[in-house]
Amino acid sequence: MAHKDEFYPDWFEAAVPADSFRSIFKWGDPREYKHPNRKLYRLMRQTFKLGDDWFRQPRHLGLEAVPADLPCALDAVHVAALRTIVGPQNAHTDAYNRARVAYGKTMLDLMRLRYGVTENFPDMVLWPRNRVDLRAIVDYCEAHAIPVNIYGGGSSVSRGVEAVKGGVSLDMRVHLKRVLAFDERNQTITVEAGMSGPELERILRDAPNVLQAKRPYTVGHLPQSFEYSVVGGWVVTRGAGQNSTYYGKIEDMVICQDYVCPGGRDLATRDFPAAANGPDVDQLMMGSEGTFGILYSATLKLRKYLPQNTRRFSFIFPDWERAKDAAREIMQGEFGFPSVFRLSDPEETDVALKLYGVDGTILDTLISLRGMKKGERCLMLGTADGEAGFSRHVKRMVKKICARHGAMYTTGLVQKSWEHGRFRDPYMREDLQDYGIMIDTLECTVNWTNLEEVHTGVRAFCHSRPDTICMTHMSHFYPQGCNLYFIFIAKMEKLDEYVAYQRGILDSIQRYGATMSHHHGIGKSFAPWLEGDVGPEVMKLFKTLKRHFDPKGVMNPGGTLGLDLPDSEKRFMKK
Amino acid sequence: MAHKDEFYPDWFEAAVPADSFRSIFKWGDPREYKHPNRKLYRLMRQTFKLGDDWFRQPRHLGLEAVPADLPCALDAVHVAALRTIVGPQNAHTDAYNRARVAYGKTMLDLMRLRYGVTENFPDMVLWPRNRVDLRAIVDYCEAHAIPVNIYGGGSSVSRGVEAVKGGVSLDMRVHLKRVLAFDERNQTITVEAGMSGPELERILRDAPNVLQAKRPYTVGHLPQSFEYSVVGGWVVTRGAGQNSTYYGKIEDMVICQDYVCPGGRDLATRDFPAAANGPDVDQLMMGSEGTFGILYSATLKLRKYLPQNTRRFSFIFPDWERAKDAAREIMQGEFGFPSVFRLSDPEETDVALKLYGVDGTILDTLISLRGMKKGERCLMLGTADGEAGFSRHVKRMVKKICARHGAMYTTGLVQKSWEHGRFRDPYMREDLQDYGIMIDTLECTVNWTNLEEVHTGVRAFCHSRPDTICMTHMSHFYPQGCNLYFIFIAKMEKLDEYVAYQRGILDSIQRYGATMSHHHGIGKSFAPWLEGDVGPEVMKLFKTLKRHFDPKGVMNPGGTLGLDLPDSEKRFMKK
Repeated sequence: MAHKDEFYPDWFEAAVPADSFRSIFKWGDPREYKHPNRKLYRLMRQTFKLGDDWFRQPRHLGLEAVPADLPCALDAVHVAALRTIVGPQNAHTDAYNRARVAYGKTMLDLMRLRYGVTENFPDMVLWPRNRVDLRAIVDYCEAHAIPVNIYGGGSSVSRGVEAVKGGVSLDMRVHLKRVLAFDERNQTITVEAGMSGPELERILRDAPNVLQAKRPYTVGHLPQSFEYSVVGGWVVTRGAGQNSTYYGKIEDMVICQDYVCPGGRDLATRDFPAAANGPDVDQLMMGSEGTFGILYSATLKLRKYLPQNTRRFSFIFPDWERAKDAAREIMQGEFGFPSVFRLSDPEETDVALKLYGVDGTILDTLISLRGMKKGERCLMLGTADGEAGFSRHVKRMVKKICARHGAMYTTGLVQKSWEHGRFRDPYMREDLQDYGIMIDTLECTVNWTNLEEVHTGVRAFCHSRPDTICMTHMSHFYPQGCNLYFIFIAKMEKLDEYVAYQRGILDSIQRYGATMSHHHGIGKSFAPWLEGDVGPEVMKLFKTLKRHFDPKGVMNPGGTLGLDLPDSEKRFMKK
Repeated sequence: MAHKDEFYPDWFEAAVPADSFRSIFKWGDPREYKHPNRKLYRLMRQTFKLGDDWFRQPRHLGLEAVPADLPCALDAVHVAALRTIVGPQNAHTDAYNRARVAYGKTMLDLMRLRYGVTENFPDMVLWPRNRVDLRAIVDYCEAHAIPVNIYGGGSSVSRGVEAVKGGVSLDMRVHLKRVLAFDERNQTITVEAGMSGPELERILRDAPNVLQAKRPYTVGHLPQSFEYSVVGGWVVTRGAGQNSTYYGKIEDMVICQDYVCPGGRDLATRDFPAAANGPDVDQLMMGSEGTFGILYSATLKLRKYLPQNTRRFSFIFPDWERAKDAAREIMQGEFGFPSVFRLSDPEETDVALKLYGVDGTILDTLISLRGMKKGERCLMLGTADGEAGFSRHVKRMVKKICARHGAMYTTGLVQKSWEHGRFRDPYMREDLQDYGIMIDTLECTVNWTNLEEVHTGVRAFCHSRPDTICMTHMSHFYPQGCNLYFIFIAKMEKLDEYVAYQRGILDSIQRYGATMSHHHGIGKSFAPWLEGDVGPEVMKLFKTLKRHFDPKGVMNPGGTLGLDLPDSEKRFMKK
């Protein structure tokens, strides 16, 4: 039990200098915090064998100012020309504005900002105002071989936004966030690529007022990064929301797209739900991660917004095997799919029960009385969405299958608790890092047949490092497999150590047969493994596509998707 | 009412000479027939203003032998070399074997065979035995610039199989029809491309015996051509089965593929249900219609086979507007989708009620009593599949929505009657054609917003020709639109007239804004309209892909997908 007089860190909440690195890497709202609770604090202290003293003095807070004298490698003539295109108020060469769009949100990014590493900054940041600006920027940059990098919401965890070759970064959030069309009959909305997740959902859920619609709608795409992600980022990386088991991944939600590409090879698709007219160009462009062109707008399928019908559930299973079997049976049951759907392995379950407030409650006692042991028991949680009768039936079937596999129903309250934290957990990263504790994630797709080999193999690597937490869950389920998601926490402060550890996990993901990403994308971080994943002929095909769209190689260069990666940097892991 | 002493044609059932054209173009089992019933006969006679006398003497029965002296343009050296690759019993240059795989099943094909037109025959037919044969054939043909055409089930209605440039045709049905793998945990099956629809379903539905599985399965892909189609044809053309509203199109069912491509650029994908690792290569290869390479095998997702849960329904709506609204509301209802789902427009409804045995029955009287008028009323029919509670709920919701839109429930019997004829209607084509009556179909995808313009515009063109039946239905539904399917029947015997009429319909489909195919594919028939459909930049992209896979242009050349079509043959229709 928690003792109120026990030491508890004085988590950082001071004002952050406006020009500081911390003002950039701090997650979310500058005035918002979510600190680790006492149970999590105690877990950190115990796992990493740290005394309370360790947590009395934070280090590397990143309060230093971004150095103003950062050199800009772009010729003054180009700076002037690009400034003319977008207007002076939308063109920036100052260090702070460049730092703001330089990195994403992987631990490598956060560490670099925290330690004041300013590598790979763009030389100039542009805030394009419209499609005409995009066209002019791309034309100018292609003509003068200036790399074009694209910054969406900035929540990339694959180094997708990083200007490895310098050049310009386009900040899509500033102006390109309009609704271009809404068709209630077709249930579609067309938005510019910089439209943010929360703004899109605000508009749709208030559609009767904002769009003069008959009812409220949703896209149903709610990634953990929701609050700081944009539509364009979702689409070009093939992202997934936490409700994807019902709503699908973003590639299932896009009905057509409009790309601005070098050389006027702009590519727009049409808004039909299916066709048999050659290769599917939408599915070819999604996943291009800014290397073929700039996504200007996307038309998304809408769903009715029916939160009143959401049914929540959670279960504790006696062990991982029975839990996995139940999950597979649910997905292959032909009765529709749950919406949020997650299954934690034993290590994550024990942490989750602490985080979601179950540990130490009567429910916890009941779980133990049912013989569900720590280190073996597994937590499944989720929701059913859709029309009232449908969601009720899905929950009923889920309960039936779980009971058959020995699960104990632990009510919808655990799910409620998860929902409360779903977008807020990232706020804890700074707190932990202030005391040298790294928390990061990697993920992959497995099918049911290779799931266990990947789970065991990756975890074995993670735990080959002493005093390291590796929590794993399955989420984003399909009848043929699921996403396997690893959260690793360790006392780790050195950049090199982090990079080597991440590489080892990625090696293991590939070695044990998973595909390299389910929804984070490839970016520059995972590019060395891509050819080993898709094979050399697919890689050649990607390069052909790249040459088609961007023969001069100005779009998001420097390793993205491995298109311009030297063979020496590629990794091919086999058992 | 039908009078038994009324004249009724003596439909052709005589034995057909084994070497005749009719033995090739006759649909299906040589000993099976489905003749037009008396009501349909009367409708033909009245609509086309023909007397009984017209139906006393059939013409152009196509009983002539395929001329044995058909020249083979392939050099004897090549014939010998290709014969060596596959073995003499699998290599054929005789006219009859070449005629058998020369054409598909569009009316143009049937007319040509009936009239003894032998244009565009392949020079040689090969029956590849395995992947090694495919590899060797493609290598040899690429080295010697010999066109490679691929014949699957032969049910193409887009001139997809036609050897416009001569060369070899590969008959995939003979040997390449094996099950390569079955993974019950993943619910997938891997089969060679020549596996026929019925054989695949036989194996899966009998999986406990044939595959030592725990239960029976289905792919759920049942096109009208089911009995004479193969998996490879489904996949490379992006086909759809009649139950696609629940099971999806074939592109939703494929999890990975293995292609043999020129120059060793063989391309195999991996069996993961989703990924974020670059462009989706499966979706890029599906729709390539044999122009990038030869599909050797495909891994398909399986579904539980649960025929005991199928719920049937049918409704008559007072008018087309209310019927369409109900269909859209069903698809946007968030309670799951029906499986078979069809909505006939007024013209088709009146014919359908004759065909499905409703006309003249008590049900017909009841429909009239409810004020549903001929020429206005619309028939909706379908099924719900899946787990028992799911299918029950889908049917319940469908009934509720239809009732709200003024529909009368006409029981599941009409659907039963449709199912009885679902794979047998094609047998009637020869009967009609024996008396100079052409029946053919064209289809497209519409979204809800442009549906009516396409429906009205295409029908106006069809009816601009006097005495022509144009029945239209919606099928293959999505929340964002559906397939619009036109069946036209006319007294028409001349090839030229048929080609011009078909062109006019296709012009109208494009002019009024639909996409050129939902599931028939593009082939050579619809290729002139493809660039107008997808736009010039997508067309350039297709050509880049073609050059990547097949720089020498040997794979299915002669217009397929418009990849080598002269600009002068392209059609761009705008309002």
